[in-house]
Amino acid sequence: MNAVEAMKLFLEPRSVAFIGASRNTSKDGEMNALELLVTGGFPGEVYPVNPKADEILGMKCYPSIGEVPPGVDMAVVSLPRHLVPRAVSECVARGIKAIIVHTMGLSDGQDEEGKALQAEALAIAKAGGARIIGPNTFGVMNGFARLSTYMGPVNTERTLPLSGICQSGMFSYKSWPDLPLGGQGPVGKIVDLGNAGDIDFADALEYYEADPDTKVIFLHIEGIRDGKRFLEVARRVSRKKPVLALKVGRTEEGARAIASHTGAMAGRDEVYDALLRQCGIIRVDDLDELEDLSQAFLYLPLLRGTDLAILSHAGGMCSMGTDAFAKYGLTVAALDPGTVQKIEGLFPSWASVKNPLDIWPACLSNEYLSTLNSLVHAFLEDENVAGLFCVIWAVREPELRWYDASQILGEAAARFPHKPICTWSYGPSWPQWKVAIHGSGVLWYPTPERAARVFSALHRRWRFLQGDSVPGPSSTLKICLTSASPYAKLQEATPTT
Amino acid sequence: MNAVEAMKLFLEPRSVAFIGASRNTSKDGEMNALELLVTGGFPGEVYPVNPKADEILGMKCYPSIGEVPPGVDMAVVSLPRHLVPRAVSECVARGIKAIIVHTMGLSDGQDEEGKALQAEALAIAKAGGARIIGPNTFGVMNGFARLSTYMGPVNTERTLPLSGICQSGMFSYKSWPDLPLGGQGPVGKIVDLGNAGDIDFADALEYYEADPDTKVIFLHIEGIRDGKRFLEVARRVSRKKPVLALKVGRTEEGARAIASHTGAMAGRDEVYDALLRQCGIIRVDDLDELEDLSQAFLYLPLLRGTDLAILSHAGGMCSMGTDAFAKYGLTVAALDPGTVQKIEGLFPSWASVKNPLDIWPACLSNEYLSTLNSLVHAFLEDENVAGLFCVIWAVREPELRWYDASQILGEAAARFPHKPICTWSYGPSWPQWKVAIHGSGVLWYPTPERAARVFSALHRRWRFLQGDSVPGPSSTLKICLTSASPYAKLQEATPTT
Repeated sequence: MNAVEAMKLFLEPRSVAFIGASRNTSKDGEMNALELLVTGGFPGEVYPVNPKADEILGMKCYPSIGEVPPGVDMAVVSLPRHLVPRAVSECVARGIKAIIVHTMGLSDGQDEEGKALQAEALAIAKAGGARIIGPNTFGVMNGFARLSTYMGPVNTERTLPLSGICQSGMFSYKSWPDLPLGGQGPVGKIVDLGNAGDIDFADALEYYEADPDTKVIFLHIEGIRDGKRFLEVARRVSRKKPVLALKVGRTEEGARAIASHTGAMAGRDEVYDALLRQCGIIRVDDLDELEDLSQAFLYLPLLRGTDLAILSHAGGMCSMGTDAFAKYGLTVAALDPGTVQKIEGLFPSWASVKNPLDIWPACLSNEYLSTLNSLVHAFLEDENVAGLFCVIWAVREPELRWYDASQILGEAAARFPHKPICTWSYGPSWPQWKVAIHGSGVLWYPTPERAARVFSALHRRWRFLQGDSVPGPSSTLKICLTSASPYAKLQEATPTT
Repeated sequence: MNAVEAMKLFLEPRSVAFIGASRNTSKDGEMNALELLVTGGFPGEVYPVNPKADEILGMKCYPSIGEVPPGVDMAVVSLPRHLVPRAVSECVARGIKAIIVHTMGLSDGQDEEGKALQAEALAIAKAGGARIIGPNTFGVMNGFARLSTYMGPVNTERTLPLSGICQSGMFSYKSWPDLPLGGQGPVGKIVDLGNAGDIDFADALEYYEADPDTKVIFLHIEGIRDGKRFLEVARRVSRKKPVLALKVGRTEEGARAIASHTGAMAGRDEVYDALLRQCGIIRVDDLDELEDLSQAFLYLPLLRGTDLAILSHAGGMCSMGTDAFAKYGLTVAALDPGTVQKIEGLFPSWASVKNPLDIWPACLSNEYLSTLNSLVHAFLEDENVAGLFCVIWAVREPELRWYDASQILGEAAARFPHKPICTWSYGPSWPQWKVAIHGSGVLWYPTPERAARVFSALHRRWRFLQGDSVPGPSSTLKICLTSASPYAKLQEATPTT
């Protein structure tokens, strides 16, 4: 069974068996993955397996996996570690090809016994033609199918075409704030690889490659086992969909922490950096950047140049925005003389009409919204301007509705589908502004630096798709992967300059 | 009149005259600073001045400042620029010593006329013993006195002992997200210097130095006029209260944008960097850091060492947190053997009990809250541990209230008043968790990097107060300011190594 077929069983199963289903439920104050799956609205068949119970949550409970009806697509194993190999063996015997192992203390444990048990379970699965996600995993989440094998509540009602492959359960939650849909669970699909004993990044990537529910992919990487296969697959996928990666274990201390989390070898950071770059993957530094770029690639067009415009209703943000642009290799565009001609009549004679532009002086004697509208369109019509950073004074009290500029920006975004627009706002109504702007094709970022970082990523992606190599500090380091043998191959790769 | 006396008139006036008070109010969809002051609940006397009106908003309107009752503490001038010198002259004649000039197009304009008008107005004020804030300013805001001269609504009801000195009106708003009190206007006091023609950073700093409403001070600097006086004052103030500074115009392009915003000369960034460092001021890079550090200095104790602990209910955050610590010069503490002994019984034999510590394995067979409580206290009792980063799985559904750990962390913060605790959380209830933790003496940050940056600042402040020089990349550059002559002195200073 190839990776995509296996991943379909994991992410789109028609039936799920829970081996080691717990009788303790939320009524007892406990998290119960089986209960959460059922109450979450999963429409497929669910089979609890537990020799100590006849029924759980009103469902018939089976004493062993051998007794559940045939044809189950996926099994979830939540048993003490010494029982894991036998459970896998019984799944194989029942013809189950997709097995998630929740259990901790395998290769992530500090003793040899855990590693031996994991190796035993993996060997049994391999011999039987079954695939394993984990061990030491929450499993999978697919909001489009109302599927979750997580040990905590996940909202599978609202979903984004944003899919993740992770080595920690936290990423299926709205771990990071402020994704536009708000609330919990906006991520569409998640595969938590855990110890990544079998199913690895490349397998899930191949599934997402052709998945119509996936527009943007993000990775949380502690260690990649088979670097060569990853390189082959990721290179291909990243030309089709943006792939973001948060690679942790950048430091020696962080790498040690990884060894006791998933048993992975973090590898040399500069090697990973070069590998990700060669794959066309956009590496992010932290959760803020992961959030910001996820939003950007979901909602904004790519940026086709590095010269941008700043229109600001706060003079102070003209300099802050310009500084932020410079930090990320972007510049304030020199306006076409025709653009200045178009708009200078709106300003008093003492004001300098240029980019960046403080809107305020124009509003001293002109109505605000029509002024903003003229300026936004004039700037975006300018061929020297590849994108716009617009700072809004967010005052939206009932009597002062003339300050609501979200419609103007939304219309501009629709008229200029190749010029990304980011905003920042201040004033008493900035949270409402943030909500107002959502869905308009324009995004709000909490600082000009974060907007500039987004513009920079949108431009690098554009250049990458044009066939340029992605620029960056480590771009001279080339990774040479000569072998696909498992485990710790990546960090043995030879960097060449 | 010395700076502190002048600043008291500006920030604690008993009466305010509005010269050029507008008859247009929010009913016409316009912002009216006079109206906003009155509706904001300012308890002092307010005198509108406008020769074209008999009354505004039901208040008697005076034809000139010469006719308002004597003894007015402060005047706000909102007139076209050519009328500004005369208005200042009339204020002086009426004995008004504190004048805010809203008007734009003075030294911030691109023509010589604006600069000349500003110089004229300043000379009149100086000769008459009056002080000016601005021109090109929103003026002042003092939430404790329900005072605001801003052209937009500012919430003066809830206030923090956080005071700012800025060169942009945006800072009096809740410009940046997520200060714990939420909503608008949590900043206690603001002085918007605008063009900083007269009242400068040092003047407002001296006022905040002794101000009982001010615990933490932040600066937004485009340019400092008198570097020598700033150095003298800031050095003294920063030993009493933490002073944060966002210095913009870091880049050549940003500096050019400043020249047309407030007419200030941004100066060489490395000179400013060294100056701020010598003053003991904590320089922040962006609005996120300004927010994070403002919170930290308001609510957390200083950090007395660089060795910290990580307790995480997400294994993945052990490595991410460790990486983040390393990025900011912090390390994960080696636990005292006694600490390990105290807690290892909570863990299965395969788990490694060390710092950073994944809580999850201990919860496989122990009740969560009491386990967390034991671990938190054991870690904080350890003399090797100077502070704690705690990652919480934020699940707070009604049936699962056992996951609410805010009380435990609050109690720990109270028991260990010299060990700062920062948290991060994931899970469906992270926004509620963030609210729950507020006020407990523990703070939540959106990424481990931002928590680590906070720990680092808390430690640098502690070292600074111990008499150590504040470490940093530019610490070898010493600023030598030999003259106090006004304008552009700072950038002429001689850096010495």
